Amino acid sequence: MADAGTEIETLIELMAKLPGLGPRSARRAVLHLVKKRGVLLMPLAEAMAEVGRTIRECLNCGNLATGDICPICESEKRANGQICVVEDVADLWAMERAQVFTGRYHVLGGTLSALDGTGPEELRIPQLRDRIAAEDVREVILALGATIDGQTTAHYIADELGESVSVTSLAQGVPVGGELDYLDDGTITAALSARKAL
Amino acid sequence: MADAGTEIETLIELMAKLPGLGPRSARRAVLHLVKKRGVLLMPLAEAMAEVGRTIRECLNCGNLATGDICPICESEKRANGQICVVEDVADLWAMERAQVFTGRYHVLGGTLSALDGTGPEELRIPQLRDRIAAEDVREVILALGATIDGQTTAHYIADELGESVSVTSLAQGVPVGGELDYLDDGTITAALSARKAL
Repeated sequence: MADAGTEIETLIELMAKLPGLGPRSARRAVLHLVKKRGVLLMPLAEAMAEVGRTIRECLNCGNLATGDICPICESEKRANGQICVVEDVADLWAMERAQVFTGRYHVLGGTLSALDGTGPEELRIPQLRDRIAAEDVREVILALGATIDGQTTAHYIADELGESVSVTSLAQGVPVGGELDYLDDGTITAALSARKAL
Repeated sequence: MADAGTEIETLIELMAKLPGLGPRSARRAVLHLVKKRGVLLMPLAEAMAEVGRTIRECLNCGNLATGDICPICESEKRANGQICVVEDVADLWAMERAQVFTGRYHVLGGTLSALDGTGPEELRIPQLRDRIAAEDVREVILALGATIDGQTTAHYIADELGESVSVTSLAQGVPVGGELDYLDDGTITAALSARKAL
């Protein structure tokens, strides 16, 4: 591909590092970008540079923000005494899309993992403890993945916070619109043991 | 996602327009970019801007180039009297990766299509005719896809060029490493009718 110029090669190599794209789809994406120079390539270059310049992590909760503090931590309306602990900003976005949680968040930035050597210090857990007193938090809602690492992290945080605050976690059960036939045994077991009277 | 800032939203919307990415994978890619700001986000923004500034279509063959004429058309070594006609720059790259063709290319920019209303004028076919005389071409190799539109285009070009030059096309048959069991009937038929003595 020497004929395509080193500029194109560099762009393909960088694009191939994005999750979900490999060398082949990166080439396809770059050709698409070149064809749509005015409406896609140049706006995308600008949008990336702009995000790179302005976006950083909220010093309080770890959400993405344009300033030191994100809009959710800045809003007095969201100081309702609840903090929802999530693994990642993607999970925070998922919660926000559901438009049902009105408190603040705390983004851990991962889960505890003996395998990867991720300990509590890497995970913003000390900061969570600080916030409980500072923001007069009554309830910590653990919205962590139903994986081994996610559940280990949840139990660690619950132990760590102790009696200082009420710690809850998202219910496990049948997803809305889910059919029993397609669910794994673990979900059915969890849903059965958490069954409710109608 | 108002919390993530309009900069992030804009970037996600643009990324979702890339082939192979949807809204969900665009969000994932953007979060990855933000995490890898120094090593991926900023270099990617610069590479895109650079490609947007410098890359255009070769006036002679339609390949991507940093100047008016691409390196292949500029190289005297590649003026061997052969022109390989491809549909798209991606196909030109595929031919170059195989490192077996030593002539020049002609990128059509698509195939004839009655459905999409793509006629010969949209496809750089007139320019191909001009190049045959100008570059003293002896053979035109049609490397077009084995689709209905690809084959229609191949036949149209062969008719158009007439006796002025020898027109060939890539052989059809069993792909190297291919197993008969996984091939479609059309490929097996083509491979059988083009069988060779060992």
